This record gives sequence, structure tokens and C-alpha cells, in this order.
Amino acid sequence: MEPGEKKKEKEEEKMVMTVLHGAVIITMDDQNRVFKDGGLVIEHDTIKAIGHSSQILAQFSHLAHHLVDLTGHILLPGLINTHVHTSQQLGRGIADDVDLMTWLHDRIWPYESNMTEHDSYISTLLCGIELIHSGVTCFAEAGGQHVSGMARAISLLGMRACLAESIMDSGNGLPSSWAARTTHDCLQSQKDNYNKYHNTADGRIRVWFGIRQIMNSSQQLLLETRDAAAQLRTGIHMHVAEIPYENQLVMDVHKVNHGTVTYLEKIDFLQKNLLAAHSVWLDDNEISLFSRAGVKVSHCPASAMRMLGFAPVREMLGAGICVSLGTDGAPSNNRMSIVDEMYLASLINKGREVYNSGNTDPTALPAETILRMATANGAKSVLWDDEIGSLAVGKKADIVVVNPWSWPMVPVHDWVSNIVYCMRTENVVSVMCNGLWIMKDKKIMNVDEEEVILNAKEASAELLKRAGITLPTRMNVI
Amino acid sequence: MEPGEKKKEKEEEKMVMTVLHGAVIITMDDQNRVFKDGGLVIEHDTIKAIGHSSQILAQFSHLAHHLVDLTGHILLPGLINTHVHTSQQLGRGIADDVDLMTWLHDRIWPYESNMTEHDSYISTLLCGIELIHSGVTCFAEAGGQHVSGMARAISLLGMRACLAESIMDSGNGLPSSWAARTTHDCLQSQKDNYNKYHNTADGRIRVWFGIRQIMNSSQQLLLETRDAAAQLRTGIHMHVAEIPYENQLVMDVHKVNHGTVTYLEKIDFLQKNLLAAHSVWLDDNEISLFSRAGVKVSHCPASAMRMLGFAPVREMLGAGICVSLGTDGAPSNNRMSIVDEMYLASLINKGREVYNSGNTDPTALPAETILRMATANGAKSVLWDDEIGSLAVGKKADIVVVNPWSWPMVPVHDWVSNIVYCMRTENVVSVMCNGLWIMKDKKIMNVDEEEVILNAKEASAELLKRAGITLPTRMNVI
Repeated sequence: MEPGEKKKEKEEEKMVMTVLHGAVIITMDDQNRVFKDGGLVIEHDTIKAIGHSSQILAQFSHLAHHLVDLTGHILLPGLINTHVHTSQQLGRGIADDVDLMTWLHDRIWPYESNMTEHDSYISTLLCGIELIHSGVTCFAEAGGQHVSGMARAISLLGMRACLAESIMDSGNGLPSSWAARTTHDCLQSQKDNYNKYHNTADGRIRVWFGIRQIMNSSQQLLLETRDAAAQLRTGIHMHVAEIPYENQLVMDVHKVNHGTVTYLEKIDFLQKNLLAAHSVWLDDNEISLFSRAGVKVSHCPASAMRMLGFAPVREMLGAGICVSLGTDGAPSNNRMSIVDEMYLASLINKGREVYNSGNTDPTALPAETILRMATANGAKSVLWDDEIGSLAVGKKADIVVVNPWSWPMVPVHDWVSNIVYCMRTENVVSVMCNGLWIMKDKKIMNVDEEEVILNAKEASAELLKRAGITLPTRMNVI
Repeated sequence: MEPGEKKKEKEEEKMVMTVLHGAVIITMDDQNRVFKDGGLVIEHDTIKAIGHSSQILAQFSHLAHHLVDLTGHILLPGLINTHVHTSQQLGRGIADDVDLMTWLHDRIWPYESNMTEHDSYISTLLCGIELIHSGVTCFAEAGGQHVSGMARAISLLGMRACLAESIMDSGNGLPSSWAARTTHDCLQSQKDNYNKYHNTADGRIRVWFGIRQIMNSSQQLLLETRDAAAQLRTGIHMHVAEIPYENQLVMDVHKVNHGTVTYLEKIDFLQKNLLAAHSVWLDDNEISLFSRAGVKVSHCPASAMRMLGFAPVREMLGAGICVSLGTDGAPSNNRMSIVDEMYLASLINKGREVYNSGNTDPTALPAETILRMATANGAKSVLWDDEIGSLAVGKKADIVVVNPWSWPMVPVHDWVSNIVYCMRTENVVSVMCNGLWIMKDKKIMNVDEEEVILNAKEASAELLKRAGITLPTRMNVI
């Protein structure tokens, strides 16, 4: 090898190596390590080293092209939102304070069934901006419209996502365009999406299979989805056991003794690659069934409180189920912030204990458990824990930079509980995904926020008009 | 009158008149009026006119010294936080994930009993900054240390407050400095505070009587507090019916058939000027007792979920009780944001219906009810509704300016529900209290935020040391 070649190599190494130092690093690794004064080396898209700042600087500062002093900041692994309807972002506020049937039949189905591919693109851009501001680097789409639009948006934003289509092949009251789809159509469309978009955008996009919910799924759809997902080695995202009515219907139709989970086990649908959203109405046996099968659960505290009920989260975690956090969609929540869901998950699950014991249990779901749900458990839930979910050597550089030294978090007596219970989106200053900054000093890097907001305003107004959705006026508007 | 004099008068009038125009104005007045394109005139500290922008501009623009175009913004009455421990702000994070006895005996009592007057000052400054960022112009102190320190801070910040001292004259396990206080000491200290601080700071500060809770109050303290408050025409702030244990103890000791509320009625303590905080464990009869007596309730969703249980808010509102919103203190919540409490109050009270009916009720506590709790009901709760709680002619100019055109709130299909369910502290851009801007374009006007944060960091570390409070380390800190 010529000397020149070696030099060139060394220069290239310099160009792609960034050292972050001086920060509190909450790694969420297997040893639960927190570096009080930590340093982290990023090479290309990957974490090359992590340790005490002094060691990291001694070893790498002469090699680094970027040396970033983060004294006073806290570093976290990128947060993972395991249940979000990006297509619903333009429908924020269209279904507040209405009962579930009005929500579904008069608002959400007309809205979603009238979306264009451009609407899905704009909606996902707008949702992505909110997700990045709340420290999310990876999410699981719950099943929406036009995967092509979602993929375009995610590719541009620089995030990581498991995209899925909203799939229904049966059930009452569906909009005509949806009712016309056969089981074959449903599966073929998803296989096409997989072939087009899986593993695109530098590997940041994966395509999953979607099942909207049991009441809109034939048994054939369930079984063929299971087999297709296994064959393509990808995941299945499905709303499971959301309301008591769902379980009752499953009992009546399928002659099982409890609900959706019991039925899904009976047809051998419960697998390691199933991400079950909400899962509020499970009995003890069904919790065991999930645990034995390795099913993952996305707990969405806000939308569960508003629409569904109290999920048995403490019991599921106790049974060894991997439970992570999701925001659900904008018309169900209406905040798309995992920062807020961490706060809520603690409050709601401490409060829920009233109904077991007569008292709340302020020790239930402590801060470190919640933070694990939003990071390492999130990564397992989206079947991506070989690459994300903690800050460790060899993992992808998905990183959140938090500034705790402002009014929402001061004083800081306990880093972990302050992150979970006090941190606001205000404190999330920068976000890196796959080794690149996607937000820096509160500025979204790859799209123009104001332009997206203008486009969203226009697209959402047109969509509501097209869908024939009008909202009653609150108060006395003059 | 000389022409010169007249001219001078007119100039003075100009100097003190501000016209805000072009905004959506959610007045929260008795007719629930919302101006789509509204204008509002402020003269000195008072709202002089409100109406459509065009009318207001035609009538007042030539008189105004300041003409503020707020096109695209939403104006709300200043939010009112009816239960906050400003003295506890330095203790944020010292009592997370611990049981109630550890919380009280090992953390909060040692913390509070070791506070200096300077600590109360700094703690209230820090808390006030957070309150202002969340759109709060007026709060009711739940009962803390050193009213003089609180009064200094509030006077400086420019907010409005009903201050109260933490008062206990009996009970087990009190720190020695508190246990030494007689009933007489407790009352005298509060009368002294009243004489020194009531109606100071341009009328922005009022002094109330405090009762920490029934288990730390002799009957003599209760009765003399009632009489002293009546004589001075001020309010009483008391934690009432927080936990089942409290009710049980009251039943055992006072031989009543339910709990604190039943006992307080028996001794004729329930009055219109009583602000009862939390009030989670009331039976139907006790709800009637509150309603008949005109007692006000501060509902604190976050801290209730974490520590206490589900307050019967729907039932209390249904019985005609004035229920408002509070954050409680930083070691119980840990966010001091009425913006977040609005969101939580909706979620938690919709979810709570599961235990009445088997299903959540997404129609319970709609957005307009929640917004009323945070504004008009807040004003009634702090006995100040003749001057604040709505944007109406003759009321004090306490105003929040919201910018909804950023990622947390876009698209805006429904102003009121977007304010309640989507708005974040990020969207609160400016806040006026008593006719003066106390935050403008996110900048706190009357104190240096960074300096307060540095002082708080120092004071809180010293206070914890003095109080002998050490926190267990979470995770593996290296």
C-alpha cells in the first residue's frame, strides 16, 4: 500500500467520525449504565465507542472531524413510538368528545377513505415533525393509507419507520371503496409495498403487514397474513382487544370463552412478530398466552384513557411481555409525543391500582421502567433491537440530546425521573437518526416546517370537504 | 380648564391604552362568546372594550398608544391554577416513585421544615416562571413556608396570587419546629401575614388561611380559622378527603358515618369561602354537602392519579359544585402546567367512567367544560370572579396569547378542543397580568430566567443537604 492511500483512508475516517462528549449518557444498555460525564463516538451511521468523556477524548479526539461538547446535556437513545397513525395527522381535532361509533363511522372512516397519496405524504410529514420534536427516531405505523406517501415523507425526514397499510377485508359499514377489496387484494397490496419500499432509505424504512382489527378481518386474512409475514421475515401490526364489545362479538361468533386473544391463540396467530396495539381487555389467561407466544404490546396511555380503558400494563410486564409506548393517532390523543406518553404511562398505571387495592400505588411503573418501555422495549417491539433501542457499541446512532437546564426540569435531583416526569418537548434540543442530525437546536433539518404547516392547513381543509365532514360549533362563535 | 391640561390628559390616555386586534378571542364570558376576528381594548389594568376587530379599531385605534396586530393568534383569559405548592418547586424529583409515608415523612416534611425565607422566595420565583409559561396569571398557594418570600417573588413576577401558609397544630411525626407551634401561633402568624401582605402589589396579592389537612388540625384550629377568615373576608385553602385512610381515621376519631367532609359539615366548617383541594374520596351525600354549602373544589388530575385516586369530578360538576384545576406541587406531579392539567383532566375523567359503566365515555367533560374549569371556575374558586376568569368589559386584563400555527396544534379544525387537547406550553407566546405583559414572545419580563435557574440549583442542593435528604441512585451510574 502506498503512503498516499493510507493518508486518504485516514482522511475519510476523519470526515465521518463525530465525538459527542461531556454529557450525562443514559445508555439503556443491558447493564443499565449511566455515564455521569460520558462520551460517544459515531462513525458513519454507527456507534463505534462509548465511555467516560476523558477516555473517549484521549482515544478519539485526534481522529474526529466533529467534536461536540455537550456539557450540561443528557443523551438518550432515540425514543420509539410503537403505535402511531401518521395518516391521521390532518384529522387532529375532527373527532373530539364524540362517542366511539360517531368517531369511527362519521369522522375517521370518511376521512381516511378520502385521502389521496399526497394527503398521506403531507400528513406523515406533519406527524414526523411532531415526532422528531418529541425525540422519536423510529415509529411503527399503525396501518394507514398510501404507504408510498408515508415512505416518501420518512425518506425525506430522515427517520426510521415500520410502515403498514390499513387492512380490512370484512365487517359492517365500511366505505364502498374499502368494502370492494378482496382478501387477495389486501395481501397483494402489502406484498407490493414490501417489494417497493422494504429496506429503502438507507435501510431506515421497513414494511410490515397490517390488520386493522378482528372485527374487520376474515380468518383467511389473518392466516395468510401470518404466513406471508413469516415468509418475508417481517412484522404484523394489529389493534387487539380494544373494547369489551370486541371481545363479546368474538365470543359470540367464534365460540371462545373470552375474547380476541383467546381466539387468535386458537387459530395459531400469536407469534413473536405480532405487535398488538392497546390490548386493554385481556384476562389473566390471555396475558399468559401473549407471554408464551412472545407477542409484543404497544401501550397507548392517552388514547386508552380517552376511548378504551386501563390496560393491565403492570401485569403484562410482570408476565415478561415486552410492553412499549405509542401515541396512537391525532384524532385519538391529540398529542403525538412520546415525551408526554412517558409521563402519562406513569400516572395512569399508578392510579389504576386503586381498582385493585383501594389505593393508588406511587411505586408502580417507576421511571426506569417507563424509560425502558420508550427505548429498549420499543426496539424489541418493532423487531429492530439488534440495531436500535440503546446506546451501545455497534448499534445505529439514534440519539436524543436533552437540555435539562431550563424551567421545565430544574432542579435536577434525579436524572431518570426528571426525564420521565418533567421533561417536555421544549427540552428536546437535537435528534440524530442513523448518524445524521434530523433536528439540531430545535430546527428540523430536512424539511421546511412552515411550508409543511401551510400545506397541511390546505390539504386538511380540502380533505374534510371531500369527505363531507362538518364539525358542530362549540360555544357561541360570532 | 386650560387647553394644555386637556392635551396632557389625552396623552396620558394614549399612554395607557392598548388595543389587541385580529385574534380569535375565546372570552369564557357568560354568553360563551368567541370572536372569530376579535379586538380588545385595555386601559390601565382593565378591559375597556371587546368586540369585532373592525368595530374596535374604528372606535379606539386613534386613541391607542399600542396597537397590537394578533392575526392568527388566539386570546384566552389568564389561566388559573387553584392548587399549587410554590414552596415545593426546589423539591421537584425528590419523592418520585415512593409510597405515601416515605413521600411525607422522609422527603417532604424534612424538605419543607428546613426551608429558609430565601428558599421560599427562590422556589416561588422558579415555580412562577413555569406557571407563566403555561399561561397562568393567578394561582392559589396550597399552603407553604414563608409567605413573605412568596409575596416578594409574586410582587416581582407580576402575577396574581392567593397566598397561604402551611398550617398544622397537631398530628404525629411532625418535625420538631412545627410540633412546637400552638393553635394560637398558627392563627396569629396568618393574621400577621394578612396584615402585611393582603392586597399588596397593586392588589395582585391576597392572603388566605391555610389548613394542611384534617389529620394535622385540632377542632379549635378549624373553628377559629373559619371565624377569622369570615371576619377578614378571605378564603380558606385545605386538602380534603385525599385518601381512604384519612376518611377512616376521621370516622374512628369523630364518630361520623363517612369521612372528612361529613365531619366538617357537622362542625359547620363548610362555607362558600372554602377551597377544598383534591376531594377524591367523597360519597354522594358528601357531594351534596359541598354543593349546598357552596364549597369550591380544586381538581388536580396528575397528582390525584399518582397518589390519591379518581375524584368524582363529573358528579361534582353535575351537582353544581364549582370545580377548577390545580397542578399540586412539583414533588407530586412533576409538571406545573395548567396546559397539561387540562389535557389530563379530560383523559382521566373520560377513562374513569370505565368503573361506572364498563366503558370509557369519550363525551364526558368536553373541551369547553375543561376550559371553563381552568378559567371562570378558577376565578370563582379563588373568590376573584368579579375581576378575573373571563375576557369581559370591566374585568382585569389577564390575557394569554396563543400561537396555534405550529406543529403541536396544526391543523386547527376546532379552536376550543385544540386549545384543551393539543396546546402545549410551546404555543403560549405572551401573557399579560393586570394590564402588563409578564411574558412577551416567550421571554419572562420581570426576572432573569437564567439567574433564577442558577440560584435554584444552588439553593435546592443546599436545602437537601440541610434536610439530610439523600436519594437512592437509579440504574448503574458510573
